[in-house]
Amino acid sequence: MKWNLAIAAFCAAPTLCAQSQPEPNALPLMPWPASVIVQSGSVPIDGSFSISLSGAGSTDPRIKAAVERIPIRLTRQTGIPITLRMIPGGQSATLNIIVESKDHKAPQRLGDNERYSLQSSNRGVKLSADAPLGALRGIETFLQLVGQNTTGSPGFSVGAVTIQDSPRFPWRGLSLDVSRHFIPLENVKRTLDGMAAVKLNVFHWHLSDDQGFRIESKKFPKLQGNGSDGMFYTQAEVRDLLAYARDRGIRVVPEFDMPGHAASWLPGYPQLASGPGPHEILRTPGVLTALIDPTKESTYKFMDGFIGEMAKLFPDEYFHIGGDEVDPKEWRASRTIQAFMKKKGIADTKALQVYFNSRLLKIVTKHGKRMEGWDEVLQPNLPKNIVIQSWRGQESLWQAAREGYKGILSAGYYLDLMQPASQHYAIDPLVLPPARKAQLEKQNKPVPQELNAEEQKNILGGEAAMWEELAIAENLDAKLWPRLAAIAERFWSVQSVTDVNSMYARLRTTNYWLEWLGLTQRSNLELMRQRLAGSAPVGALDLFASVLEPVKGYSRHPEKYSSTTPLNRLVDSIPPESDAAREFNEEVLNFLHSTSNGPDALIQKLTMWQENANAILPMLKNNSLLTENVPVAEAMIQLCEIGKEAIASRTGKGALRPEASAIVAKLSERQGDLLIKIAPGIQNLVEPGL
Amino acid sequence: MKWNLAIAAFCAAPTLCAQSQPEPNALPLMPWPASVIVQSGSVPIDGSFSISLSGAGSTDPRIKAAVERIPIRLTRQTGIPITLRMIPGGQSATLNIIVESKDHKAPQRLGDNERYSLQSSNRGVKLSADAPLGALRGIETFLQLVGQNTTGSPGFSVGAVTIQDSPRFPWRGLSLDVSRHFIPLENVKRTLDGMAAVKLNVFHWHLSDDQGFRIESKKFPKLQGNGSDGMFYTQAEVRDLLAYARDRGIRVVPEFDMPGHAASWLPGYPQLASGPGPHEILRTPGVLTALIDPTKESTYKFMDGFIGEMAKLFPDEYFHIGGDEVDPKEWRASRTIQAFMKKKGIADTKALQVYFNSRLLKIVTKHGKRMEGWDEVLQPNLPKNIVIQSWRGQESLWQAAREGYKGILSAGYYLDLMQPASQHYAIDPLVLPPARKAQLEKQNKPVPQELNAEEQKNILGGEAAMWEELAIAENLDAKLWPRLAAIAERFWSVQSVTDVNSMYARLRTTNYWLEWLGLTQRSNLELMRQRLAGSAPVGALDLFASVLEPVKGYSRHPEKYSSTTPLNRLVDSIPPESDAAREFNEEVLNFLHSTSNGPDALIQKLTMWQENANAILPMLKNNSLLTENVPVAEAMIQLCEIGKEAIASRTGKGALRPEASAIVAKLSERQGDLLIKIAPGIQNLVEPGL
Repeated sequence: MKWNLAIAAFCAAPTLCAQSQPEPNALPLMPWPASVIVQSGSVPIDGSFSISLSGAGSTDPRIKAAVERIPIRLTRQTGIPITLRMIPGGQSATLNIIVESKDHKAPQRLGDNERYSLQSSNRGVKLSADAPLGALRGIETFLQLVGQNTTGSPGFSVGAVTIQDSPRFPWRGLSLDVSRHFIPLENVKRTLDGMAAVKLNVFHWHLSDDQGFRIESKKFPKLQGNGSDGMFYTQAEVRDLLAYARDRGIRVVPEFDMPGHAASWLPGYPQLASGPGPHEILRTPGVLTALIDPTKESTYKFMDGFIGEMAKLFPDEYFHIGGDEVDPKEWRASRTIQAFMKKKGIADTKALQVYFNSRLLKIVTKHGKRMEGWDEVLQPNLPKNIVIQSWRGQESLWQAAREGYKGILSAGYYLDLMQPASQHYAIDPLVLPPARKAQLEKQNKPVPQELNAEEQKNILGGEAAMWEELAIAENLDAKLWPRLAAIAERFWSVQSVTDVNSMYARLRTTNYWLEWLGLTQRSNLELMRQRLAGSAPVGALDLFASVLEPVKGYSRHPEKYSSTTPLNRLVDSIPPESDAAREFNEEVLNFLHSTSNGPDALIQKLTMWQENANAILPMLKNNSLLTENVPVAEAMIQLCEIGKEAIASRTGKGALRPEASAIVAKLSERQGDLLIKIAPGIQNLVEPGL
Repeated sequence: MKWNLAIAAFCAAPTLCAQSQPEPNALPLMPWPASVIVQSGSVPIDGSFSISLSGAGSTDPRIKAAVERIPIRLTRQTGIPITLRMIPGGQSATLNIIVESKDHKAPQRLGDNERYSLQSSNRGVKLSADAPLGALRGIETFLQLVGQNTTGSPGFSVGAVTIQDSPRFPWRGLSLDVSRHFIPLENVKRTLDGMAAVKLNVFHWHLSDDQGFRIESKKFPKLQGNGSDGMFYTQAEVRDLLAYARDRGIRVVPEFDMPGHAASWLPGYPQLASGPGPHEILRTPGVLTALIDPTKESTYKFMDGFIGEMAKLFPDEYFHIGGDEVDPKEWRASRTIQAFMKKKGIADTKALQVYFNSRLLKIVTKHGKRMEGWDEVLQPNLPKNIVIQSWRGQESLWQAAREGYKGILSAGYYLDLMQPASQHYAIDPLVLPPARKAQLEKQNKPVPQELNAEEQKNILGGEAAMWEELAIAENLDAKLWPRLAAIAERFWSVQSVTDVNSMYARLRTTNYWLEWLGLTQRSNLELMRQRLAGSAPVGALDLFASVLEPVKGYSRHPEKYSSTTPLNRLVDSIPPESDAAREFNEEVLNFLHSTSNGPDALIQKLTMWQENANAILPMLKNNSLLTENVPVAEAMIQLCEIGKEAIASRTGKGALRPEASAIVAKLSERQGDLLIKIAPGIQNLVEPGL
């Protein structure tokens, strides 16, 4: 059966082979568990599949819901019709779930026990957890272990393995902006499916921003009425989503960003504004200077009502008030605000925000919540139970931790920057990035000391963040997945799990696996490219696109876009990271660094891409939405030609044109909003030093 | 803009060019309208899209629902955020819909007016219909006309065109078996979406058979209780589906097959049985000999109750009682039945079915319905308002028509036979298939005369049929689409629209277009193949599979399958028809019949398939569900080799092995459940006569 064979390759004594470090050909588990011991044997997964439940915690409604999902998911993963067959606890089923205690009260809380152990053998699978959350996590591990037999009868099985697992950090989140582009509930739900699958446990719902107020307030209906263009979640939908999240072991933390990022509050309630207006939601990306007025008592009365309403709706103990990126222009311009500051002895606008936050803190606390905010909310005299979410980085986060505040890291985990998984994977909340360290040293600035064990406890984990300026429901899954799974591993697995090759190998399988949850990272992009191809088969465009990536960071110039700009171009229809290009670039290095790797495979690929780019030029010219990519195809043709020349030159079969390096450098730059990601490999081929 | 350029190629005077016959590069309309005149100009489809409604019929709730779907569908088709913008009727919108009258009463009836005309120009689109149904049909035509600009600014438009359209037949259906494998409601709904898109108007719901009773009866709850393994539609779901169908201009005709195909009635109500039992639903394909007992009065009392209940639930005027394939074994074996026949003077079991049908007819009529049944129900003295559905063929159907009965053709339209679209497309309810005619002539049997004009009126149309022995929800879409669109054209378009090349060209675009409705004919098969490929990228398996087809007819031996046999093999994950193979086989003919077509493209393809089949052998061997396909890959390698040899021999560059023809003939046969569909092309290459 599958796993035994796979493991045999690198593990001489299987029964004793603990994989605390996953190898590139490790089991396709992501995040990698704390301890994995591969053994001999396997249990078939077929139509006779059954489940037993035992332990005091097994009556938890989350367990019941999770157990009901298992046969549905197994059916999808295997194509075998599997129905729910429960066997009385104590008797032997295929999957025996033991949940020791039901110590969790609703709502799920930060730090709830997620530990589980899983043991599979020829006799079946035993999944033990201290409490319900651990069982949910273990069920996902079980489902990841289901694989096709490599020998013997056609079918699926789970190889024998002993796993002990618990998370490194208790706060493992995704922050999703639904303001810049609205994301319908069904898409949010499948995002939660994916999060649960990779053991993320906090959904941070960025519900308001300058571009839209996305939740129904019954107390202040003009918030969504005038601030959302009709695109918002009703409270019934929110309750539905909250139940959905709870069933999957995910906390939901709402964020209402203020006093900045708050333009969408003002069309309905201009009395909250610091400036004179006119008040409109922003229909372009960016941040407005519109601020909530912190000097009026009526503001706090409103917030008391609003936060009270939302605090009742959202059961989580944390409540995020944003607090980032306040441009004090309006506060400086307002005579009444200036007078208020003078009267109260508030020295500057920063102190005014401190005043605002202190007032908000009281309201949040009054309604039974702990406050969360971005770096900027950190100020002296805050209670230690607040949580700081750092978009600025480890230094800011560590500073808070040293002062005794709890914090989570988001810097380095911004998925909208279109960076490769490896880059996010390298970021650790407890490690200063080497580049930053080098920068500080170069600037003769002090390098912050690492946190001591006690301070480290204040680092609760991290949150990936997806800002939606250039993402829409149609391509959201592809913007999140599979990279989010690599970040989830960073938050769950022990710090030493850092092998990038293993990560990419497991990420690929995990990406396929996630599709059985209904995620559309491949299928929707394919449809989008078919739309571009029109009546023609999409294969050639797929191949062309397979080595392209969107430009990185914010260099796509979001300011060129309004909220109604169609995001239907080639750049919108490709994943953030090209696997084909990464693999090619690695193969180039293998060719350059080892005599045992011949150039044939490289030449074949370059020829294929070159011929294909030539062949689709007519399609690019004849489909108006593709025409902008004609120069990309031309650049690709040239790059491939130079790559082949470079190989010919290195193998003594031809000459490389002298200007090759300069041309490749030029073609490595952005072509429109795209990067030809095989350019770095070709650059290596032409560099004489390598 | 797109259409003008496309049309220019074959239409010298665009404004006068009526396309009653679609050319291969015609507009991507399917079914082809009665009259199409392409003109100059176009109207952009962008974020400013608007709709106006006018005419007495525009207040029909179906129009409102259809209009609300338009922006959603346009957004998907174009990637442009389009919201519903209504402009007062009379003022100019992008799409101006005029519905003259609201003469349709609920429920939709056979023959309701579906005529529409559509005129588009630079100024906008005018869609006029006599009545609401026509507007629904015209909206689909409008949506099919939306295409990407080929020149000018990036975006979408509708080219100028004048279309007059109405259907050839008033009854254009799909019969869907949900008994052999249950099909969840959401899949049925998207099937209706697809049907409406290609202007089909009857959904024939085959709700009961030996393998399962799939609808809730409140009067006789043991029907679904003991006869469905829990897989049935509740009446609330049925009502939901009926509303969904009505919104899309589709009638729903329920079928309850009896007295045969009726095993699933009997576990709950054994008193209906002719035989002694034991009574169980059939968990394998095939037909049981279990029959309903036509001799007990209690049977008719039961049927009166049941049909009464269902007649209330289903608003359509037709009610299908099945009546096919009665094996009279039980009737012959039963002493009480034999005694009854003797007493009543019923000569044989065929006459007994006539008696049963007559009694059913009274019940069906009493509950306000017209009876429909398969060929076998035809008997003397039936009222002329019944409808015969013919699975036997034109002769049987024409016979009924000559006798004054209405009929629809299903023979030739069985989608489960895995035949190519061209084969179904060639079948016409009013034309005897040439092969049948030749057969009759050879046997010296009389060839039936064609129907005269009056008799032809009795042919209401046809129904494609999808039997589910070897189809499941996961691959249902791929079993239906795109072939069903070709059949829909046969039922809608004028008889002379028969060009196969045009059909295939438009079918391809229609297939892509249908995916925007959520149909999964490509994406689900891709997922199924990814499941087979496991952790490896699926591309190589896709390429391998792209020239394979499932074996035809019922030669896959359904008897090997039970209702729980996994349908997760390669044969389940490929479309019924290989486009790549069909194109290759055509290219072979072009090469053989024209000196201007060189062999390079053929050699390239053969090399690609051969290398790929070699490359995936390890995957086939290492994934237990794929192992059975090792001989297929080996056969493909050999076929490609021989194909290249044959080309070399024809171009004087090599010799063809003498046994080539015999080998190819052998490899043209089924390999397991698969056919290598490039074999016919290769056979042509090796035949010396060609």
